[in-house]
Amino acid sequence: MMEKLAPAITLITDFGLQDGLVGAMKGVIHSIAPQARVMNISHHVPPQDIRWAGFVLLTSYKFWPPETIHVIVIDPGVGTGRRAIAVQTTRGTFVAPDNGVLSYVLAREQATAVVSLTNSAYWHQPVSPVFHGRDIFGPAAAHLASGVPLLNLGEAIGVETLHALAVSEPNRHFDGHITAHIQHIDRFGNCITDLPEFWLYESPQWRIDVKGCIIEGMRQTFAEVAEGEPVALIDSSGFMAVAVRNGSAAQEIGLSIHDPVVLWPISRPVTPI
Amino acid sequence: MMEKLAPAITLITDFGLQDGLVGAMKGVIHSIAPQARVMNISHHVPPQDIRWAGFVLLTSYKFWPPETIHVIVIDPGVGTGRRAIAVQTTRGTFVAPDNGVLSYVLAREQATAVVSLTNSAYWHQPVSPVFHGRDIFGPAAAHLASGVPLLNLGEAIGVETLHALAVSEPNRHFDGHITAHIQHIDRFGNCITDLPEFWLYESPQWRIDVKGCIIEGMRQTFAEVAEGEPVALIDSSGFMAVAVRNGSAAQEIGLSIHDPVVLWPISRPVTPI
Amino acid sequence: MMEKLAPAITLITDFGLQDGLVGAMKGVIHSIAPQARVMNISHHVPPQDIRWAGFVLLTSYKFWPPETIHVIVIDPGVGTGRRAIAVQTTRGTFVAPDNGVLSYVLAREQATAVVSLTNSAYWHQPVSPVFHGRDIFGPAAAHLASGVPLLNLGEAIGVETLHALAVSEPNRHFDGHITAHIQHIDRFGNCITDLPEFWLYESPQWRIDVKGCIIEGMRQTFAEVAEGEPVALIDSSGFMAVAVRNGSAAQEIGLSIHDPVVLWPISRPVTPI
Repeated sequence: MMEKLAPAITLITDFGLQDGLVGAMKGVIHSIAPQARVMNISHHVPPQDIRWAGFVLLTSYKFWPPETIHVIVIDPGVGTGRRAIAVQTTRGTFVAPDNGVLSYVLAREQATAVVSLTNSAYWHQPVSPVFHGRDIFGPAAAHLASGVPLLNLGEAIGVETLHALAVSEPNRHFDGHITAHIQHIDRFGNCITDLPEFWLYESPQWRIDVKGCIIEGMRQTFAEVAEGEPVALIDSSGFMAVAVRNGSAAQEIGLSIHDPVVLWPISRPVTPI
Repeated sequence: MMEKLAPAITLITDFGLQDGLVGAMKGVIHSIAPQARVMNISHHVPPQDIRWAGFVLLTSYKFWPPETIHVIVIDPGVGTGRRAIAVQTTRGTFVAPDNGVLSYVLAREQATAVVSLTNSAYWHQPVSPVFHGRDIFGPAAAHLASGVPLLNLGEAIGVETLHALAVSEPNRHFDGHITAHIQHIDRFGNCITDLPEFWLYESPQWRIDVKGCIIEGMRQTFAEVAEGEPVALIDSSGFMAVAVRNGSAAQEIGLSIHDPVVLWPISRPVTPI
Repeated sequence: MMEKLAPAITLITDFGLQDGLVGAMKGVIHSIAPQARVMNISHHVPPQDIRWAGFVLLTSYKFWPPETIHVIVIDPGVGTGRRAIAVQTTRGTFVAPDNGVLSYVLAREQATAVVSLTNSAYWHQPVSPVFHGRDIFGPAAAHLASGVPLLNLGEAIGVETLHALAVSEPNRHFDGHITAHIQHIDRFGNCITDLPEFWLYESPQWRIDVKGCIIEGMRQTFAEVAEGEPVALIDSSGFMAVAVRNGSAAQEIGLSIHDPVVLWPISRPVTPI
C-alpha cells in the first residue's frame, strides 16, 4: 500500500533571498508540517507588486495537484485592517492577504470555501506586527497540510467580500480590431498581453501594431522569424505575447507594462519571413 | 506508527546561484543523506560577508526544530589554518568555518558540544583546497543528519576557543539617551539596528534621530504613518528598525550599515500622524 | 527494511525566478512524481547561454547519485526541429534539448542509451510551442523518476547524432608552453580556464601570463598570497583558475570569457610571497 503523501506547499513572496525572512517562514512551516514538501515558486516578485505576484500565481497554480496549498505573501498592508485569508477551490487552496493578489485566480476558479484567518490558536506566537508571512500565513498553510480543516482556521466569509485587483482587459472594437495591454514582462523581455488565445479565433490572421512596430501575423514559435526579429505568438501562459527571437522585446521595441498592443484582423494568409 | 523523519539541513552561503557550487554541495549531501530535507535559507549573502550571514542565521535559526542542522559557508579563509567546526546547542546544530559567523547565535545559545571537523573519514574525497563547503561542511551535516554522533566527526574543542566576530552594540548614555547602529539593511531598504526591543521598555516613548531625520515615537506597524513617511518600529527580527512605508529607508534617508541611530526618551504620548 | 527513495530530479534553467515558469514546471513534475525530490541547481543561467549551462552541469552532476535525473532547459531553439533528448550514463541521466548543452558531460561519460523524446503519451498536454521545459522535459524526468523505462519515452538514437557544442581546448606548444582560455567566470570573479589539472604535472612549476599580469607559480589556495593579490590555482571544478584573494580577478585584472591565459614551464621552486 502506498502511503499518502502530504500535500505540497508552494511559496510566492517578494522577500528576496538575501535576508532571513524566507528561512524563518520555512522554519515555521517545517516545524508544524515536517512531512510537507515546501517548494519555492518565486521569492523575487518586485517589492509590494501585488499584480506581478498574481500573474506568477496565475501561470503556475493549475499545474499543481488540487490538494496543493499555495502561499502568496506580498503584503504592503501588513498591520492595517486588511484580512488574512485562505480560499479553497477545486484547483488548489490559496493562503494570502486579502489585497487582490488572488484576483487572477478567482476570475477563473470557483471558491468552495473562504476563511478569514482569525483563529490565533493557529498562529505562530508571538505574532510580529510586520511579518505575517512567518506568523500567520505560513502556519495556516502548514496546519492545512497537516490535515486541519480549513474552517478551524477562522471564520467563513463570502468570496464577494474579497478585495479585487483592477486587472486590465482587452477591448474589442466595433470594426473588429482589438486593443490589448502588456500585463507582464518576463525575464527574457517577452511582453505578455492580457489577450487570451481564444479571442484570436475570430480572424484567420492579424496585423499587430505595438508602438508603431508592425508585426504581420501571429506565429506558433520564435523560430518562424529570423534572429533579432519581432514576433507575435501565444505565450505558454495562454496569452498573446510580443517577443524578439533570441532578444528582448521590452528593450528592443521599448515596451512597458500597460502599453497598448493593437490587433487588426486580416484575411490573407501570412507568408513565412 | 509514524516513521521518524530525518532532520532538515538548511543552507546559508555566499555562492550565488549562477554557478554549479550549490548544485555540487547539494549533490554530496544528497548522496550521503538522501532522506534529509535540504532547504535553502540563502545563497545570496554578499561575497565573504561574514557579518551578513551571521545576521541571516540569527533571524532564521530559532524558527526551525532543534534537531535541524544549519550549514553556513561564508569562507574567505578556506585553505588557511581556520578550523572547520560543528556546534551543538539545544536550539540547533551549526556547521561552519570558525570565522565568527556563529557569533550572533553563540551570544544567545549555550553550546552543548563543539567539534573541530578533523576526521577525514567523514570528508568528501578528494578535498578541494578551495571548496570545503562541498567537501567538509556539507558532508559533516549530511552525516549528522544520518545519525553519526557529533563527536565522531573530529575532536572536541572549547567554545571559548572559537573565533568571535566584533558585533556592534548599542550604548546607553548617562542621561538616558541611546546610540544604536544599523546592522542590516534588508531587501525592502528597512534599516535594522542593533537595539533589542527590551531596551525600549525604559521610557513610554522615544524621539529617534537618524542622520538628522527626526521620527517622533515608535510605532507598531508601517500602516501608522502615511505612504512615503519614515517610521520607527520593532522589526520581525526583534530589533528596532527605521523604515519608510512602502519605500526604502536606506535610499530615501540615505542610510548605510554602521550608521548611528540616536534615541531620546520622551514621556508624552505620541499622536498618530 | 528501508524503503527505496525515488531518485532526485535536479533542475538547471535560464528561467530566472521572477516569473511563473519554474513554478509551472515544478508543478507538472510534482503532479507526475510527487515522491521525487526536485532540487534546484540553477535557474540563473544567463538567458540562452548553452555553454554556461553546460559548465554548471559539468561542475555539479558527478556529485549526485547515478540514479539522479538532471533536467537542463536552455532552449533558444524551442519550436525548431531541434530534438528533445534523454541520455543515460552510468553517472546520471540527462534530459535536455539537443543543442550541445550536454557536450561537456558527454566528453567525459559513456552514453548507455539515448532517446529522442517523441512519445507524446509522456508529454504534458496541451504542449505549448514555446515551453517544452514544462510540457516535455519536465514530464520526461518525472516519468523516469517514477520508473518508466527510458526507451518508452521515444525512439533510440545514436549518441553520434547529437549536436555538439564547440568547446574551447587548451593548446600545448612545441616549446612546452600552454595557451589556455577562460571558460567561466564565477560569482566571485574567479576566472576558470579550460586547462585540466593534469596538464600541469608536466613541469614542477609555471609562470602564468594573463593579459600582461604575471603570476609566478601555481598555489594550492587563496591564502598563500596577500589580500588583493592575484593567484593561480586549481579551482574546485578541477580546472586551472586565476583569482584575486578576497577580490574579483575578472574586475581587477579585466578578464572576460575566451581571454587567453599563457603558462610557461619553470623549474625553480616558487617562494611564498
